[in-house]
Amino acid sequence: MEMCTGIPEELKFAVLERIKPTEPEREKLFTIQEELASKVKMAAEKLGVSGVLVKMVGSAARGTWLSGTHDIDVFISFPEETSRKELETLGMAVAREVARHAEHAEDRHAEHPYLNITYKGFDVDLVPCFRVASASQIKSAVDRTPFHNDFVKPRIKGHEDEVLLLKQFMRGGGVYGSELKTQGFSGYLTELLVIHYGSFKDTVCAACSWKPGEKIDIMQHGEIKHEEPLVVVDPTDPRRNVAAALSLDKFCMFIDHCREFLKSPELSFFFSPSLLPLEDREILEKLENRKSSQLAVVFKTPDVVEDVLFPQLYKMEQAVSALLKEYDFAVIKTGVWSGKTETAVVLELISSTLPNVKKHVGPPVWVKVHAEKFKEKYQAADDVFGGYIENGKYVFEIRRKYPTARELLEDRLMSCSLGKQVHQSVNEGFEILENAEICRLKDSNFRIFLSGWM
Amino acid sequence: MEMCTGIPEELKFAVLERIKPTEPEREKLFTIQEELASKVKMAAEKLGVSGVLVKMVGSAARGTWLSGTHDIDVFISFPEETSRKELETLGMAVAREVARHAEHAEDRHAEHPYLNITYKGFDVDLVPCFRVASASQIKSAVDRTPFHNDFVKPRIKGHEDEVLLLKQFMRGGGVYGSELKTQGFSGYLTELLVIHYGSFKDTVCAACSWKPGEKIDIMQHGEIKHEEPLVVVDPTDPRRNVAAALSLDKFCMFIDHCREFLKSPELSFFFSPSLLPLEDREILEKLENRKSSQLAVVFKTPDVVEDVLFPQLYKMEQAVSALLKEYDFAVIKTGVWSGKTETAVVLELISSTLPNVKKHVGPPVWVKVHAEKFKEKYQAADDVFGGYIENGKYVFEIRRKYPTARELLEDRLMSCSLGKQVHQSVNEGFEILENAEICRLKDSNFRIFLSGWM
Repeated sequence: MEMCTGIPEELKFAVLERIKPTEPEREKLFTIQEELASKVKMAAEKLGVSGVLVKMVGSAARGTWLSGTHDIDVFISFPEETSRKELETLGMAVAREVARHAEHAEDRHAEHPYLNITYKGFDVDLVPCFRVASASQIKSAVDRTPFHNDFVKPRIKGHEDEVLLLKQFMRGGGVYGSELKTQGFSGYLTELLVIHYGSFKDTVCAACSWKPGEKIDIMQHGEIKHEEPLVVVDPTDPRRNVAAALSLDKFCMFIDHCREFLKSPELSFFFSPSLLPLEDREILEKLENRKSSQLAVVFKTPDVVEDVLFPQLYKMEQAVSALLKEYDFAVIKTGVWSGKTETAVVLELISSTLPNVKKHVGPPVWVKVHAEKFKEKYQAADDVFGGYIENGKYVFEIRRKYPTARELLEDRLMSCSLGKQVHQSVNEGFEILENAEICRLKDSNFRIFLSGWM
Repeated sequence: MEMCTGIPEELKFAVLERIKPTEPEREKLFTIQEELASKVKMAAEKLGVSGVLVKMVGSAARGTWLSGTHDIDVFISFPEETSRKELETLGMAVAREVARHAEHAEDRHAEHPYLNITYKGFDVDLVPCFRVASASQIKSAVDRTPFHNDFVKPRIKGHEDEVLLLKQFMRGGGVYGSELKTQGFSGYLTELLVIHYGSFKDTVCAACSWKPGEKIDIMQHGEIKHEEPLVVVDPTDPRRNVAAALSLDKFCMFIDHCREFLKSPELSFFFSPSLLPLEDREILEKLENRKSSQLAVVFKTPDVVEDVLFPQLYKMEQAVSALLKEYDFAVIKTGVWSGKTETAVVLELISSTLPNVKKHVGPPVWVKVHAEKFKEKYQAADDVFGGYIENGKYVFEIRRKYPTARELLEDRLMSCSLGKQVHQSVNEGFEILENAEICRLKDSNFRIFLSGWM
């Protein structure tokens, strides 16, 4: 690692002042946690469910949560020998009993069902899990979490501020969050980086020289090869890469963020100035300035959680881009945006129109059978502008099937491979907005997206 | 060679009827040849130049000329030991003496000077040459011609009609003529093909299956490897490829012409219907129908012979096309046309305009030194729309220097590598005509060119 200049203490203080939970905030959180724990125990007792232990996990339990976030993870742990069926029915029964005291409750589903409630303003997950002997013997993905807690908690003690700084720094760089929408760094990953490198500063310095294939294995027990850009072997499970969800671009964005920060360490790297929604006038100005073609495929937002929606949107983004390229439209970039009611895949093209004439190059004249077949086919076809020989190959000038991107998408979008819910929604109807037409979308979040886009 | 169906005798007759010199035409030509021969001898005598022999060469001398062509090649042959200087002064003196009886005379220059005259309506070349022992010992390129004559004349006797048919068939296919403009088949090459294959029909049948690398070596004495698509070893010089001037595309056009002809042998393969000049209205219709961008770079026709001009025009065609591609303009096809006063390099583009924004992809973020240098350069540059990371690489959206093909050509055409005379002419001034503007060019030959182009 190269020489790494320090980060001014005042800067860290200034950041922590804004993100570190205050004493009253901490006390309130601890109180709520204890209330929830005792409510779970009482519920189990009341329902006659035995062998249940309560475990507080996540950043709230480790003292590494950012001020203002009100997430609490309560794990309701059952003996290993409990059947899946029992875990689900009894676990959810206990959770529902606790939820009787909540302002709001909602069934959710990962590998198993769990309950999300709002309790005294806190966003609480009540998650039934198995109490297994080690993280490598888990029966369900959530069973791993308590082991993470056990690993991190004693090691992070005294370094909580470093974790807070790193988390906020990642937020500022747009790379924090391991959901399928963000594909960035998870909270657990952030903690492991601080444990491994020792501090916020040392993590940032090290990351400046990261390359894809970077591997961190705190317990030196990694068992298998991973292909992801960053590999952080789970200290509680030698076969798992904690950074598996991190995309190449978010990995690179973090490297870039670290390098820029070290050049001039400033508050803005932690709190990026928020973009303002573009007004119609600004959109039109930018269109005129760029002179490219903007295209938005708009449809009703499918009623599914983001972790289901976004992989489908990214898939659609790829599929639409591939379709356009297949038909000769040059794609500059693609993006997705999803709001409450409407969702859009947005594309910038060199041009959304192409000539009617399309140059179709065939086989060399001397590859007799193929060449003759090719010539016969196109010579006889309707709407052929002309034919000639170029570089020894037959060339026909045929009529382009889709001279506009709009026609192509209207005709062929449904033949793209789309995810289930996105397919359903697009099938119910979609709209193509081109250039100035995108002003039709008034959602201010879309306008903020456009501000970063154009 | 595959089975090859016959060619109707009536068709051959019909062709020959139109192209075979009539008896009066033959007689006139022979008379003129004899007159010229005696005039050369008299001129040499008069000027006291000794050792001069006269040789009639070319198709006129071999009875393989097409009716209506009035070309006579008179070679004024000097003993081998003559110095170059002497050859030129004495040879030209003799030629000029002959030219005193001509309607018109013009000095021309190949490797040596020669005289082109119009004599009783015939187009006559008076060419001084050395009388060497064999074609492989020539002192000047023209010295080879008498040997060609000696080889062909006895072997073509009785097959003259086959040569006429093949020449006219090549004309009909646009592949006859070995000048640097046409890059097709020379008369001598045509004669050798008939000598080798035996007839017009057998040549056509064989050519259907030609592939690049096709080699014909009548004397079985070829000494070196040639890279051209067709290699016909000169029977009078084992190191020379008679088909060296034949381009790949003309080679392929001939193959194609042969195949189509055998499918339905018709008169039109010998006499292609002549194209009509496009009218303004038709140009506009075709532009609207194709919806591509037409571009013509127009300049004064340099005052040089076609064999000098066309290689320079083809070079310019390549250079302009490469320049446009370098700056992201997609070229569909290119062509050149040259008239008496004006010359044009014509290009068809997908579009002659591009967005102002240009996507500039840099090195991967993790290739630290390069990546940082790249980012620094573009981040600080004026007129950058934005930057982001894509597939691990820095991408900057920069302002395109030339958003129109016109601006690009106006600014950079002179930096292209152009031939000497073309460079001079373009340097004096050029004009870019775009789409409907090409109607400015009224030359009916240009309009005929356009008819084949669009």
